[in-house]
Amino acid sequence: MAVRRRGLMLVLSSPSGAGKSTISRAILETDDQLTISVSATTRPPRPGEVEGRDYFFTDVPSFERMVAENALLEHARVFDNFYGTPRQPVEAALSAGRDVLFDVDWQGTQQLRDNAGRDLVSIFILPPSHGELERRLWARAQDPEEVVRKRMAKAADEMSHWAEYDYIIVNDDLDDSVGKVRAILAAERARRDRLVGMPDFVASLCAGS
Amino acid sequence: MAVRRRGLMLVLSSPSGAGKSTISRAILETDDQLTISVSATTRPPRPGEVEGRDYFFTDVPSFERMVAENALLEHARVFDNFYGTPRQPVEAALSAGRDVLFDVDWQGTQQLRDNAGRDLVSIFILPPSHGELERRLWARAQDPEEVVRKRMAKAADEMSHWAEYDYIIVNDDLDDSVGKVRAILAAERARRDRLVGMPDFVASLCAGS
Repeated sequence: MAVRRRGLMLVLSSPSGAGKSTISRAILETDDQLTISVSATTRPPRPGEVEGRDYFFTDVPSFERMVAENALLEHARVFDNFYGTPRQPVEAALSAGRDVLFDVDWQGTQQLRDNAGRDLVSIFILPPSHGELERRLWARAQDPEEVVRKRMAKAADEMSHWAEYDYIIVNDDLDDSVGKVRAILAAERARRDRLVGMPDFVASLCAGS
Repeated sequence: MAVRRRGLMLVLSSPSGAGKSTISRAILETDDQLTISVSATTRPPRPGEVEGRDYFFTDVPSFERMVAENALLEHARVFDNFYGTPRQPVEAALSAGRDVLFDVDWQGTQQLRDNAGRDLVSIFILPPSHGELERRLWARAQDPEEVVRKRMAKAADEMSHWAEYDYIIVNDDLDDSVGKVRAILAAERARRDRLVGMPDFVASLCAGS
């Protein structure tokens, strides 16, 4: 008689420059219950990209059929290409008690939330200060001021959605932030409403007395 | 511009013999943001007990006045004595961003939940198996079988309330269980709805761009 659990869907969102990619990598490297979601896309493969590992490559009619059949948990158009999250592999992972990490912005998170309900755990990562955010946006490349300004405006737009997330991490110290994401995963895995088989387990504890 | 947080109320419940006391002690010793709630009681002080540390000692009329004035977050009668949790010190701690641990059974937890709403974080600790629970109940003292039977019946009654708790920990390994309680505390402290001052903080991140 054992207690199992349903997997969860983890979203980390942040403005660029807040440290999300570094934190995601650190978590994925050390957590063997968590895998990253693979998106479907209509964009052609780039050299070195592997079908099913980097993306599920598809064409526009197939993508549109997936949308029509509600087979995507979220989707978006970026310039001339479509990107989306196939529902079936995520559902299979959750049923098997495995967790799935998503790399989506606030719009993708909203769609996931609508489709996933309580399976979704969302974390918003914020930079510690305006100065630090600006420094990181500048440091990313030797871009003209105009480009950095646009990036800052985009960051402000993303940050305006902080209140839609379950958890907030101010990324002051990288190790500390990684520790917080790990703690959130450990806690959410112990949530009563993710556990499967509890009534039978409790009955087995009482039996024979 | 800093983000503060409201404190939380932590309840650990379990049938006796599931390891709750050991886990509580381990957490209290290492977590400097968490203190244990001090109950009011009409029971007379025992030798060595200190007012305000072990209990707030009071008489029956004063206790009844506290109940009437809704000055207790929960209360119960045990044989001829009354026990209860004064609201004011808990409220002061939460406002100051400090967390409070409660040692109450499922009935106390229900009252706290009604009074505390989202401030309450509740964890139910279960033994790993019937045999292990029985072993621990016997090991507590050299009691006649009748007494152990009663204890097991009380444990079964307590365990029947597992579904009212936010988190479930099956205490298979003590270090692992302590780690889970720590993770739950770290996660709950990062919950968006406990944070104070977020709108101003996010505004400060965007300002000057």
